[in-house]
Amino acid sequence: MELWFTEQHTKDVNFSIRVEKQLYSSQSDFQKIDIFDTKEFGKILTLDGYIMVTEKDEFIYHDMITHVPMATNPNIKKVLVIGAGDGGTIRELTRYSTIEQIDMVEIDPMVVSACQEYIPQTACKLTDERVHIYYEDGLKFVRTKNNEYDLVIVDSTDPFGPGEGLFTKEFYGNCYNALTEDGILVNQHESTFYDEYVATMQRAHKRIKELFPVVGVYQAHIPTYPSGHWLFGFASKKYDPIKDFHADQWNQLGLITKYYNTDLHVGAFAVPNYVKELLEDVKQ
Amino acid sequence: MELWFTEQHTKDVNFSIRVEKQLYSSQSDFQKIDIFDTKEFGKILTLDGYIMVTEKDEFIYHDMITHVPMATNPNIKKVLVIGAGDGGTIRELTRYSTIEQIDMVEIDPMVVSACQEYIPQTACKLTDERVHIYYEDGLKFVRTKNNEYDLVIVDSTDPFGPGEGLFTKEFYGNCYNALTEDGILVNQHESTFYDEYVATMQRAHKRIKELFPVVGVYQAHIPTYPSGHWLFGFASKKYDPIKDFHADQWNQLGLITKYYNTDLHVGAFAVPNYVKELLEDVKQ
Repeated sequence: MELWFTEQHTKDVNFSIRVEKQLYSSQSDFQKIDIFDTKEFGKILTLDGYIMVTEKDEFIYHDMITHVPMATNPNIKKVLVIGAGDGGTIRELTRYSTIEQIDMVEIDPMVVSACQEYIPQTACKLTDERVHIYYEDGLKFVRTKNNEYDLVIVDSTDPFGPGEGLFTKEFYGNCYNALTEDGILVNQHESTFYDEYVATMQRAHKRIKELFPVVGVYQAHIPTYPSGHWLFGFASKKYDPIKDFHADQWNQLGLITKYYNTDLHVGAFAVPNYVKELLEDVKQ
Repeated sequence: MELWFTEQHTKDVNFSIRVEKQLYSSQSDFQKIDIFDTKEFGKILTLDGYIMVTEKDEFIYHDMITHVPMATNPNIKKVLVIGAGDGGTIRELTRYSTIEQIDMVEIDPMVVSACQEYIPQTACKLTDERVHIYYEDGLKFVRTKNNEYDLVIVDSTDPFGPGEGLFTKEFYGNCYNALTEDGILVNQHESTFYDEYVATMQRAHKRIKELFPVVGVYQAHIPTYPSGHWLFGFASKKYDPIKDFHADQWNQLGLITKYYNTDLHVGAFAVPNYVKELLEDVKQ
């Protein structure tokens, strides 16, 4: 028997992974949730047919969304994470003993329970005593917060379906207000290689740029995401991710990471010319 | 009608591109050569079923294999290119007025003629008067050369089939001898993400490291290559690609590039920890 999962990266490009077994399949109030066991990527979580996490390459995404802001401001104590139902971002954050509180706002409790049952590799630290999980709409949650978090991580799905509101001007404005005066916002920023993702990426970048004095994007190689070239947004009220970067202090923590290192931190902000041009050339 | 080209990235991972039309198909003395027209990637060249070049992302590979050594030593005058039948590497080299001679050694004349007919985007500069094409085995050609080239670029296919000899110790040793005392060797270095490519990458790296005093690898995001994370090897007798890097001088040339820039030059050498570990952990 041959069983293959296929994701359309564009309508003319397919990416397929051989599946050993479908472990879980369910329709929640928000989306279709599936977990597959595969030989090449281990367990993979898909939402509405799009790959969110695989055991083989999740370390890349979770290293980059977490350690870049943490190495920029080592004094981060209170963190808000929006999305992140698989738990991978939380797992990385809990490695910092200096973090006192992590509020996680995930709209879909079924994603969390499925990952806790089938993908403990990412979900293993959701029970850490510093973690508070709110099963709410991130858009609404953040509206009520003011000057509270040192770091907001938007670990969202794509800008359609349940994640759509997390790419709006109102949302980014509320994130700004929720942050303390030295606060940092990091968000998953989609990709620039295939045309159909470009407009969203440009719009998100423009909206963040209108709000924050320090704004940049950085990149990682994530093999299971469309094109493999993925961007993260970095926005902050004060700290520059390169000039204020505390490489020595981060290295002294002795955290072992499979992707991130302090040279790569700097290198990740050196994006290709075609990406720089797309970021500058924003009309809407 | 639906027509799809599929490449096995591993035996459990497929990458498929919708094809508008097969433009060319031929069996040469060395390999099966196909050229397809596609909506997403423009024209694509495959050899024995593996994607070599697409019009949409070839700029990444050709920028990185060319401008990194050229910006490290701006005095490069005589270049040997092994492989490169599509012409993209030659096109980038001919943009430097300081280069006096480019010897290109391609084993398969049918690749060159097919690209000249169907992919002028890459093959357009093969008629430059500084370019001399030798239709020979690169392995044999380089044996006869001594202290002649400032730069050798190994723009090879994968380490099986006709490209196999270009990953051997004998070959790298002959490249060393073919180089002048400030010579640089750059080679396509495969990928590290999927296990089946790792051993070849490690072996190539170890062999080069035994020969050259300065050795490094650098990365690029190439969406149509397996995993999208691709490595290049940099080896040299004298120049360090970071310490001896002439960023200002390169920027003064005014070359417009779609991928390469001088910040990215430095960032490309900051590879992930898992790649660094694989490069250090070489047994054979």
